[in-house]
Amino acid sequence: MSEPYTLILLRHGNSEWNKKNLFTGWVDVRLSEQGVEEATRAGELIAESGLAPDVLYTSVLTRAIQTANIALDRADRAWLPVKRSWRLNERHYGALQGKDKAQTLEEFGEEQFMTWRRSFDVPPPPIAEDAEYSQANDERYKGIDGEVPSTECLKDVIERFLPYWESDITVDLAAGKTVLVTAHGNSLRALVKHLDGISDDDIAGLNIPTGIPLVYKLDENFSPVEPSYYLDPDAAAAGAAAVASQGKK
Amino acid sequence: MSEPYTLILLRHGNSEWNKKNLFTGWVDVRLSEQGVEEATRAGELIAESGLAPDVLYTSVLTRAIQTANIALDRADRAWLPVKRSWRLNERHYGALQGKDKAQTLEEFGEEQFMTWRRSFDVPPPPIAEDAEYSQANDERYKGIDGEVPSTECLKDVIERFLPYWESDITVDLAAGKTVLVTAHGNSLRALVKHLDGISDDDIAGLNIPTGIPLVYKLDENFSPVEPSYYLDPDAAAAGAAAVASQGKK
Repeated sequence: MSEPYTLILLRHGNSEWNKKNLFTGWVDVRLSEQGVEEATRAGELIAESGLAPDVLYTSVLTRAIQTANIALDRADRAWLPVKRSWRLNERHYGALQGKDKAQTLEEFGEEQFMTWRRSFDVPPPPIAEDAEYSQANDERYKGIDGEVPSTECLKDVIERFLPYWESDITVDLAAGKTVLVTAHGNSLRALVKHLDGISDDDIAGLNIPTGIPLVYKLDENFSPVEPSYYLDPDAAAAGAAAVASQGKK
Repeated sequence: MSEPYTLILLRHGNSEWNKKNLFTGWVDVRLSEQGVEEATRAGELIAESGLAPDVLYTSVLTRAIQTANIALDRADRAWLPVKRSWRLNERHYGALQGKDKAQTLEEFGEEQFMTWRRSFDVPPPPIAEDAEYSQANDERYKGIDGEVPSTECLKDVIERFLPYWESDITVDLAAGKTVLVTAHGNSLRALVKHLDGISDDDIAGLNIPTGIPLVYKLDENFSPVEPSYYLDPDAAAAGAAAVASQGKK
């Protein structure tokens, strides 16, 4: 083939709720000051890499959009075309949304806690439509009635993410565009699982650090032609370890 | 008819070059600190108005995009779908791009200066392709080869703006969406001239202030059903007067 396609994945930086150690899911929290710094650094890394994204994909959650806006502004590419989709959203955390992680761990024990966090196909209990942190009546999801989840496991995220990967993102890649996807821990794990052919069991051990661009070079079948790499490998290793220990005291 | 359509126009805030009093045109300068404050205030005004835009249109120039990002973030609507087009760009200022306004006024005299600034159909001299402030090789304009201007008068702006108004923006309005257009002094003057049926002569006297949302209510033929209004009328009057005196010492 000619040149491989370039895909850049970027997990949003630290949010106000990461800091508070709350389950977030689809709750639309903002970046923390630290998250703003991470996004700025991500923009610097993208600029220095010379990879020059041609098009931006984001979820419809503010923390991912802020991350993209800050990073692209920093990389002098604020002018990129933008496509947003709820299909790139974080995993919906069901009834856990808004709950304290450490308290949940204490209340339900490590096994149940890790099942909710990392089980491939067991979702947390669904959130009630009228619960404080439900998105049942959020206007940004108008038009996808019947598809707005009330809870999700990683398998559910894959099932709503991959159709969009195929219908939209791969079309831009196939046109030779360098694609930047700015999204969330679990929507990016869903994509990485697909790209790297990670098993349902092994994906539980994969942690994607915040704010560090992850680069894939793909062939015409959208398979990696080489291992993916972070633009700042040392920071990525430290960041992944930090994510893995979340919820622990 | 049912409810009139709602269109909100927003001119980007003060830029680094407004402050320096340089002709900007398509040169991709950033907002000044004052411009960031204006954009934040615009977001507050939009939030307070309850108008709730459903879709965002911007030019491909950073100062308009920054203004939109800041304002929508402030209004908790960062998640809006976004469409960008070079057809919403500021007027291309030709060979004047990068030149000091006061110095140009002194060098060429008031008559020539005002002709370049306000003549409906006399563009400034074209900019050379290899000039410092030419956009001939700017990658964001790839794909519109042959259409990238080397100078423009207001008539030229109208001719490249209105096709996009008709092909895209009016389609969203007709679908009942509240549309926010974040653009520039001259691309917005082009649209206001069209909407309000202002003559080629009278448009010279119309100044649109920066950072204050301007609201149109339109019927099914996209004609105003009532006079347009600024969300902060007092600030708008002061702002328009300030624009009118630009370049004066």
